[in-house]
Amino acid sequence: MENIITSKDNPVIKLYQKLSASKKERLQYGLFVLEGLRIVEDALKEDARVSHLIFTKQAFERYGGELLQADLRDTKTLVISNELGNKIASTSTTQGVFAICAVPEERAPVFAEDGRYVVLFGLQDPGNVGMIIRTADALGIDGIFMCGCCDLYSPKVIRSTMGSVFRERIYVIGSEDELFDVLKSGGVSTSAAVIDTDADRVTECGFGGRQAVFIGNEGNGLPAETARRCDRRVTIPMNGTINSLNAAMAAGILMWELRK
Amino acid sequence: MENIITSKDNPVIKLYQKLSASKKERLQYGLFVLEGLRIVEDALKEDARVSHLIFTKQAFERYGGELLQADLRDTKTLVISNELGNKIASTSTTQGVFAICAVPEERAPVFAEDGRYVVLFGLQDPGNVGMIIRTADALGIDGIFMCGCCDLYSPKVIRSTMGSVFRERIYVIGSEDELFDVLKSGGVSTSAAVIDTDADRVTECGFGGRQAVFIGNEGNGLPAETARRCDRRVTIPMNGTINSLNAAMAAGILMWELRK
Repeated sequence: MENIITSKDNPVIKLYQKLSASKKERLQYGLFVLEGLRIVEDALKEDARVSHLIFTKQAFERYGGELLQADLRDTKTLVISNELGNKIASTSTTQGVFAICAVPEERAPVFAEDGRYVVLFGLQDPGNVGMIIRTADALGIDGIFMCGCCDLYSPKVIRSTMGSVFRERIYVIGSEDELFDVLKSGGVSTSAAVIDTDADRVTECGFGGRQAVFIGNEGNGLPAETARRCDRRVTIPMNGTINSLNAAMAAGILMWELRK
Repeated sequence: MENIITSKDNPVIKLYQKLSASKKERLQYGLFVLEGLRIVEDALKEDARVSHLIFTKQAFERYGGELLQADLRDTKTLVISNELGNKIASTSTTQGVFAICAVPEERAPVFAEDGRYVVLFGLQDPGNVGMIIRTADALGIDGIFMCGCCDLYSPKVIRSTMGSVFRERIYVIGSEDELFDVLKSGGVSTSAAVIDTDADRVTECGFGGRQAVFIGNEGNGLPAETARRCDRRVTIPMNGTINSLNAAMAAGILMWELRK
């Protein structure tokens, strides 16, 4: 057993808390945090660059042997007191397993033949963004573009992805112009998801070749100007109360139709 | 302006807090609580039996005129101090609009020709249950059966439905036997949603006549025995990582296929 850290002034613990609380700190260090056994397992399995593994004493005894079988040459392991674990945990029933992980280097998008993509444009709810990433992974979407959204590396987004953040190709794009340039150069047809009844019905419009569907902000949808820059507008026909679907649910149904 | 209530010992405020905190109290009184302008508007619009409307002073000035245009013969209106509003609010940014509402009387299920139903069996996450009710409403599902789930009338489920709780027909059924009896007597074909690859693919199986799809618990899915009692098993084919979809997302895709 390693020395057990009890002080909240330990520099790694201080770093963990800063990264957990602040996007600015995550950007500055190029690091983000993980909490929970399963997501830490996923990170190790997918060869994410884990710089620190942090266990409470109790969690180290229970899970340490299993997790430390991974190739951890570049990873430091810390054991902290259960009290300190409760202090840094974001959930009230923490498993006591934490990690600090490097933000992946930017990669140029990969455009598969008949690739299927989703563009998250201005989504602000971390739970929605995480759920869409998880669903994209389950349905086999080839890549996710994010533009003007909440921070991909916030603890709440990461937790909601259930590990899919390490499996999906996710591209954070700085501006709308750059986004359209990238998609155009990749030969991707673009569809704006809207609730207008005169848009193409997603059940009838067909998706051939490389395709990306744009999903807009939870409250306001896509800006009209952004929708106009897309090749076409698509809509989910609703049979019931004209009550827009939650953004994550709409994205799920659109990705489902894209992949079929 | 009415007298402004400032005491947390006011009997209506005490009742509100008990109903907000406890399923047992909700069952005993046959009442539940609402918080937020939009859901209170929905309740009044759909003629839910609102026994008390509660406003903070500030909210009364802003929204009172508009809301009190409804027919409120059986509704008492209270104005409370902003401080007391913050105390009873479940969100940190409350709008200061609250209500106490009677649980609707049990109704016998209505089975439409070619009716489409969803059965929530053992779901425990209030956010999932609320999101499924909201999606069912948007997609025009004819009714929702709940058996062994978290309390429909908990504040978190109610909030997540975004008002659809007042528009959808929702039947809370006490036992599995009763559930199958009701569906059988209504001539409804039953499909168990499972992740087994040998089940019928939802894209290929077709849904004619009256149809109900069973959705199981978030962690464990449907009990094998319950799935066997259904007429068939259906599955959502996944192209990507074999990572089960979130229960609400799976329910959304199944309801979408049911309604198409």
